[in-house]
Amino acid sequence: MKIPFPWLTRGLFVLLLPLLLSSCASTRSTDGLAPGQNHGFTASQASAKEWWNTPYPKVFDASSLKPQSFIAVKGNSFVTEDGKSFIFRGVSIADPGKLSMEKRWNKGLFEEVHRWGANTIRLPIHPLSWRKHGSEWFFARIDEAARWANALDMYLIIDWHSMGNLETEMYQHVMYETTQRETADFWRRIAHRYRDVPTVAVYEIFNEPTHDYIGTGAYSLGKSTWESWRNMLETYIDLIYVYNKKAIPLVAGHNWAYDLTQVGHAPVRRQGVAYAIHPYPQKARPADPSRESFFAMWEKDLGFCCG
Amino acid sequence: MKIPFPWLTRGLFVLLLPLLLSSCASTRSTDGLAPGQNHGFTASQASAKEWWNTPYPKVFDASSLKPQSFIAVKGNSFVTEDGKSFIFRGVSIADPGKLSMEKRWNKGLFEEVHRWGANTIRLPIHPLSWRKHGSEWFFARIDEAARWANALDMYLIIDWHSMGNLETEMYQHVMYETTQRETADFWRRIAHRYRDVPTVAVYEIFNEPTHDYIGTGAYSLGKSTWESWRNMLETYIDLIYVYNKKAIPLVAGHNWAYDLTQVGHAPVRRQGVAYAIHPYPQKARPADPSRESFFAMWEKDLGFCCG
Amino acid sequence: MKIPFPWLTRGLFVLLLPLLLSSCASTRSTDGLAPGQNHGFTASQASAKEWWNTPYPKVFDASSLKPQSFIAVKGNSFVTEDGKSFIFRGVSIADPGKLSMEKRWNKGLFEEVHRWGANTIRLPIHPLSWRKHGSEWFFARIDEAARWANALDMYLIIDWHSMGNLETEMYQHVMYETTQRETADFWRRIAHRYRDVPTVAVYEIFNEPTHDYIGTGAYSLGKSTWESWRNMLETYIDLIYVYNKKAIPLVAGHNWAYDLTQVGHAPVRRQGVAYAIHPYPQKARPADPSRESFFAMWEKDLGFCCG
Repeated sequence: MKIPFPWLTRGLFVLLLPLLLSSCASTRSTDGLAPGQNHGFTASQASAKEWWNTPYPKVFDASSLKPQSFIAVKGNSFVTEDGKSFIFRGVSIADPGKLSMEKRWNKGLFEEVHRWGANTIRLPIHPLSWRKHGSEWFFARIDEAARWANALDMYLIIDWHSMGNLETEMYQHVMYETTQRETADFWRRIAHRYRDVPTVAVYEIFNEPTHDYIGTGAYSLGKSTWESWRNMLETYIDLIYVYNKKAIPLVAGHNWAYDLTQVGHAPVRRQGVAYAIHPYPQKARPADPSRESFFAMWEKDLGFCCG
Repeated sequence: MKIPFPWLTRGLFVLLLPLLLSSCASTRSTDGLAPGQNHGFTASQASAKEWWNTPYPKVFDASSLKPQSFIAVKGNSFVTEDGKSFIFRGVSIADPGKLSMEKRWNKGLFEEVHRWGANTIRLPIHPLSWRKHGSEWFFARIDEAARWANALDMYLIIDWHSMGNLETEMYQHVMYETTQRETADFWRRIAHRYRDVPTVAVYEIFNEPTHDYIGTGAYSLGKSTWESWRNMLETYIDLIYVYNKKAIPLVAGHNWAYDLTQVGHAPVRRQGVAYAIHPYPQKARPADPSRESFFAMWEKDLGFCCG
Repeated sequence: MKIPFPWLTRGLFVLLLPLLLSSCASTRSTDGLAPGQNHGFTASQASAKEWWNTPYPKVFDASSLKPQSFIAVKGNSFVTEDGKSFIFRGVSIADPGKLSMEKRWNKGLFEEVHRWGANTIRLPIHPLSWRKHGSEWFFARIDEAARWANALDMYLIIDWHSMGNLETEMYQHVMYETTQRETADFWRRIAHRYRDVPTVAVYEIFNEPTHDYIGTGAYSLGKSTWESWRNMLETYIDLIYVYNKKAIPLVAGHNWAYDLTQVGHAPVRRQGVAYAIHPYPQKARPADPSRESFFAMWEKDLGFCCG
């Protein structure tokens, strides 16, 4: 056997690694992955101990679903592939991990929501739940949700269900604790696996940003501004778009997804983005609870976003 | 039941989450918390598996203590509420976790220190010990310490007992390993729980900053300067003050809390801050060990801090 | 017993900690460590529970090896201590953790590689393997490798065997997952333990940098540029040199250690550094596979590094 022969010039190494012993060579590409370079091992694992043979993540097979239109942002509307305006009428169910523990994760739940007239189901995935169950378990649940929703011609909102300040990594409750790194890893995996799936339409990047710890005061979760938060959101959007340009990133402002006042002059500098607002009753209400007063306040507080 | 109806303008979502299924709605605020928004669950846990019902942290009930003056920084002195100068005469006991394992954590220890004439007890909390025992266990210990000290009219110094470079997160020993994030979380919890408690007077943010790994050389724990360290200290002070404006943040310089040479021209830019110095004998000593020589060296090395 | 007496000026503390109760005083310095300050405990552990007595890391005893020349970078060559040019002819074996599990970690492997004519063995240490086995176990293996290689007058390349983007901490596979912090800790420990050992000649800081997740596209592992990556490499080199100025840091460019195109105008701004190139066959090949064509392409792609 000829031995590997390293060239040397100005301390320049060439390590020609013999496959026989190499720890980073690959014999074939992995199924379900885009063609490309893969330096990992891809043989099946003889045992879980073989960390070097842990399988690579797979892409969801969109061809196994019935045809469904991709939804896109156009101007101030959502539109179907044939240009029709579309409105997401959604219900946010509980965390798939919670529902599974309560034996309530099943197609019947989706059918019930469908009967209510909703065309969308929101899956709030709590970081703590994500870690407890692991990505493999969660992808099995999201796959089920995609098949159930697709069969009902409904859409899914994947919601990274945290509350707090992702910039300082301080949160409102242990179930919301995550990191910038874990959040990027989550969206990278979601965007990679469901990149071809119209049913998984909306990526809600971070449920409710706030720097106020359950009302203890501004910056009680550390500093954050719309500008700094917007920069972070754009980083996640860029990452998502590398994998899936058809995803609809859904972004939110501070005050638990209530404050979008700065979007008017400082919008997110990416195309195809949607904004979320969570107008809990205690946030603001008109002096008299008439429909007219409600709309007047709505226009004042949010109308500028909707021109 | 009427279904939630989302408004849509320029990809703007309004998700009105039905309480029935919502994973992020709350029906009442948590006990012991400042009034304010609370999107977490607060019902008691049916089992530890119910991660979504993990209770929120509570505030220590200061009314259960006997009256004791808050201590504040005024000019170059500490003062009581009625303006009298106050001197902390303290003893640093061992880590509550270590003392508990050795069956030496009891009121008798506090009484003994009190007999020595000390009016202050320092609790050095090692990050490793904090993680081993958890915040719940540690708060139970600090609560005991607060009651024991209060009964003796003594004060506590809470000391985040790490040694190393928090900026690069490299440390002198495994027992000192922490992160910027864990340190912020620690102080946030301390300042939230003991915000009304005069007994818990001093918050020693980071015991001994150093970029020298047990004498292996400057920057052997990575880079750090007084300016960069001061910026980090100010971030923690800002966070603490959101919860507790009566706390006395205690800060230290490099060389294991010995070097304050730059404080003269570059002090911490916050009010009410105290400086710590750990003058171990090997650090510096006069040629002749007379009291006069000691004071002369003291004035030279630290006098500039004391004008 | 006299009680400690704190001086006070402008909120300046002096805590003279009584050794009896102190949680951060030391009675003697640790074996194998450079003389210097050591605030940790050094007594032997009565039990593993004594986290405060965890021993400090030791330095490898180079005097137990047979004499071997240190290798250094000089101009565009490696040279021995007596100035002779030296070429590393190496084989990259598998991860010591993997080989141990397969009962293939033994001196015989080193002897076989030596029979092939190689003078160098590369130890690819996967971050996942490093964490699974722990630093103590790994240092025992690297110690063995150093003795085996030294006995054969061979050299070692310590390779932190990750693939991905260390700047965003996103990687190609779970076995490569690490953090900037863990990477610094790894090199700090390696440089501290083997600082006197000529056999452990080369520190390959990060095996294969890439921002492309197995071919899914540029920045699919987040952003990274040669400039930002170079800054990070220089930080690690600075850290390594504090402990061991005789180490040869080996650095790589993007595209899985293939792209060094910017080194010509933007080299790493440190002395004594070597560059790695991993020219896998699929990367580039001349139209006709002649030796001449190969060298022509080589000169074009890498020659500029070798002037």
